[in-house]
Amino acid sequence: MSDHPLGFLIGVWSGEGRGEFPTISPFTYGEEVEFAPVAGKPVLRYAQRTWNLQTHAPMHGESGFWRPVGDDGVEVVLAHPTGIVEIEEGQVAGTTVTLDSKVVAGTSTAVDVKQLARTFVVDGDVMRYTVDMAAAGQPLSPHLFAELRRG
Amino acid sequence: MSDHPLGFLIGVWSGEGRGEFPTISPFTYGEEVEFAPVAGKPVLRYAQRTWNLQTHAPMHGESGFWRPVGDDGVEVVLAHPTGIVEIEEGQVAGTTVTLDSKVVAGTSTAVDVKQLARTFVVDGDVMRYTVDMAAAGQPLSPHLFAELRRG
Repeated sequence: MSDHPLGFLIGVWSGEGRGEFPTISPFTYGEEVEFAPVAGKPVLRYAQRTWNLQTHAPMHGESGFWRPVGDDGVEVVLAHPTGIVEIEEGQVAGTTVTLDSKVVAGTSTAVDVKQLARTFVVDGDVMRYTVDMAAAGQPLSPHLFAELRRG
Repeated sequence: MSDHPLGFLIGVWSGEGRGEFPTISPFTYGEEVEFAPVAGKPVLRYAQRTWNLQTHAPMHGESGFWRPVGDDGVEVVLAHPTGIVEIEEGQVAGTTVTLDSKVVAGTSTAVDVKQLARTFVVDGDVMRYTVDMAAAGQPLSPHLFAELRRG
């Protein structure tokens, strides 16, 4: 796994995050993220879930795949339980990944999300990520920040 | 779970399928599909993987979410390791689900898939599904058929 171009992401990560957006009240959440290799393929399987820190009730989740491209490119395809799918593309520099959405689309009943931009920075067994979002008539704005540790 | 509008899908299903398309040679595959409830939410988590029946090497996989809508509607959001995301919408009639794609989009390096249409028919602990696909310049054509049993 160590020679996988995205090998620094592989593992189960957990911790806490906080969210904000111009249209909602700030909130916090617990989170677990797994990046898992698929035997014989360069792709990583990705699954994420968050929960309310007080009630432990499920909040959000995402699932999909990370695809390395060339020397330092990455493509990410994700589905959200809120009825959103997204394609993000970006670059890997060392253990930092920067992504911007190429496509965000929703089902007939989903909230209208226009753009998502993400950064993931891995420092040993610590991962910090940010998600910026354009949605609900608001321009690209900070939405999520979390700090996770590899279990 | 029995009063979940998509409760008849819940479980781990496994079996074999066969594939065809105008541009490729027919093939067979082993498959496992899980439909899992998410506590406190109407959505089902969906994860699917297939493998070569001879070598057991991984072939394909899909992950995403199924969302019941109203009395008999369903929305499905999926990500594929091939770099495809799709939104399908359709109807539930008894234990038959009929879906057609509203959105199919791909990363910069993905094959160009135009449309996917799926049927799932559950008869007790047996599930049969079909997938038709328009891709690679071909109109909507039969692509996959599988028969799975609930474990």
